[in-house]
Amino acid sequence: MRNIKLVIEYDGTNYCGWQTQPNGIAIQEVLEQVIEKVTQQKVSLNGSGRTDSGVHAIGQVASFTTNSSIPSEIFSLAINAFLPNDISVVRSEEVALDFHARFSAKGKTYRYYIWNDKRRSGILSNLTCHIPVALDVDKMHQAAQCFVGQHDFSAFMAQGSSIKTTVREIYSAKVFQVTNPFGDEIGKMICIELTGSGFLYNMVRIIAGTLMEVALCKRSEVQVIEALSKGERTMAGQTMPPEGLFLYEVIY
Amino acid sequence: MRNIKLVIEYDGTNYCGWQTQPNGIAIQEVLEQVIEKVTQQKVSLNGSGRTDSGVHAIGQVASFTTNSSIPSEIFSLAINAFLPNDISVVRSEEVALDFHARFSAKGKTYRYYIWNDKRRSGILSNLTCHIPVALDVDKMHQAAQCFVGQHDFSAFMAQGSSIKTTVREIYSAKVFQVTNPFGDEIGKMICIELTGSGFLYNMVRIIAGTLMEVALCKRSEVQVIEALSKGERTMAGQTMPPEGLFLYEVIY
Repeated sequence: MRNIKLVIEYDGTNYCGWQTQPNGIAIQEVLEQVIEKVTQQKVSLNGSGRTDSGVHAIGQVASFTTNSSIPSEIFSLAINAFLPNDISVVRSEEVALDFHARFSAKGKTYRYYIWNDKRRSGILSNLTCHIPVALDVDKMHQAAQCFVGQHDFSAFMAQGSSIKTTVREIYSAKVFQVTNPFGDEIGKMICIELTGSGFLYNMVRIIAGTLMEVALCKRSEVQVIEALSKGERTMAGQTMPPEGLFLYEVIY
Repeated sequence: MRNIKLVIEYDGTNYCGWQTQPNGIAIQEVLEQVIEKVTQQKVSLNGSGRTDSGVHAIGQVASFTTNSSIPSEIFSLAINAFLPNDISVVRSEEVALDFHARFSAKGKTYRYYIWNDKRRSGILSNLTCHIPVALDVDKMHQAAQCFVGQHDFSAFMAQGSSIKTTVREIYSAKVFQVTNPFGDEIGKMICIELTGSGFLYNMVRIIAGTLMEVALCKRSEVQVIEALSKGERTMAGQTMPPEGLFLYEVIY
């Protein structure tokens, strides 16, 4: 038996999310069907974690065990031949049998992309969240540092989530401008990047909403620190929409 | 009567092209319907030129005349409020009554984007053309210089096009790498940019196909020059697919 690790990139716009659900098409489901076609065997794909409907990935990781003799690096090409255009396996490799995409993960990096211009983008509307009011990137970057370190992120979690512990560690937080390759404008695209041990449900989207509110002077850094210490959801910012969110990397 | 000029950005993936057609939804048609809603008047939108199904625009230009008293810069915001996400008016301004988006144009810039990696992009599949074999960007840029100047572009036009003259002038031709903002990889995205007095049907896509074949050593620079002088379509490269093509700017 071999254990195959896949690194997967996808545009989540047309899917109900990573995990197979009763309604809508899930990315996991599409991949499993294609892998079964390629290997001629029933497979069960273990992902590093769910992504919600409309959320994207650059480096989602999933693994499956198989008896297939296909060379490990060929899996990506063979699977891609059958996948729809908005899902791509960018790397495939054989890993130890005890590797588990979720339980072996040491951390994750998420990115949240904002289209910051008075006018919407027609080209990147599914891949960015449109904020029409000018945001101060330096101010957001500075406020983002409040999240670095080990904290109880109760205030930054969707209400109703049941989980053992709400303590997570953020290793780094960055807010920076990126260039839109389709327009060359500088300053219209902003990226929030968070790397941490793990993330609670909606945590990145709530942190992004909080940083945006800091940039708009609706919230102060002191209030962010207070929200972290008090743990009340109402003290943190709004949950940003899914289209700006990317699972960027899973660290092992 | 006022003449309003719009600069329009769109992802052409889900449309039959710019121009209204019997089958499929056209970008022109969607815009006209929204402008009629905003101005409460019947309008006829003049575009700078057609774009085919699946072709995108960063700076398509179109104009319409109206009696509406809406301030010119407000049109973009009012129209955007009703447009679907994949079309956006990025600028609106009042221009002289004799301005015509097509006939007043002095030139155009087109861009063709290639995703140059063994694996497809799951994120940018509708906005780039996937070429899995490594391309030499410098070689493509050098070969692109053959097109600069005034030439008869008969060999670089879709067969069957009826047109008065096939002579066009290319002002500049560049091939360069761009950074993918969603992945930060350098070298996976290549852009071919052509600025000229005007372009024949499929001309950019055939030039892009020819440059790609030069990069793959299937065609030499000498053969490119020969194709230009002989004017035979069979002597030029293949027509690249629409998804990599962007109408980048219309020059007035």
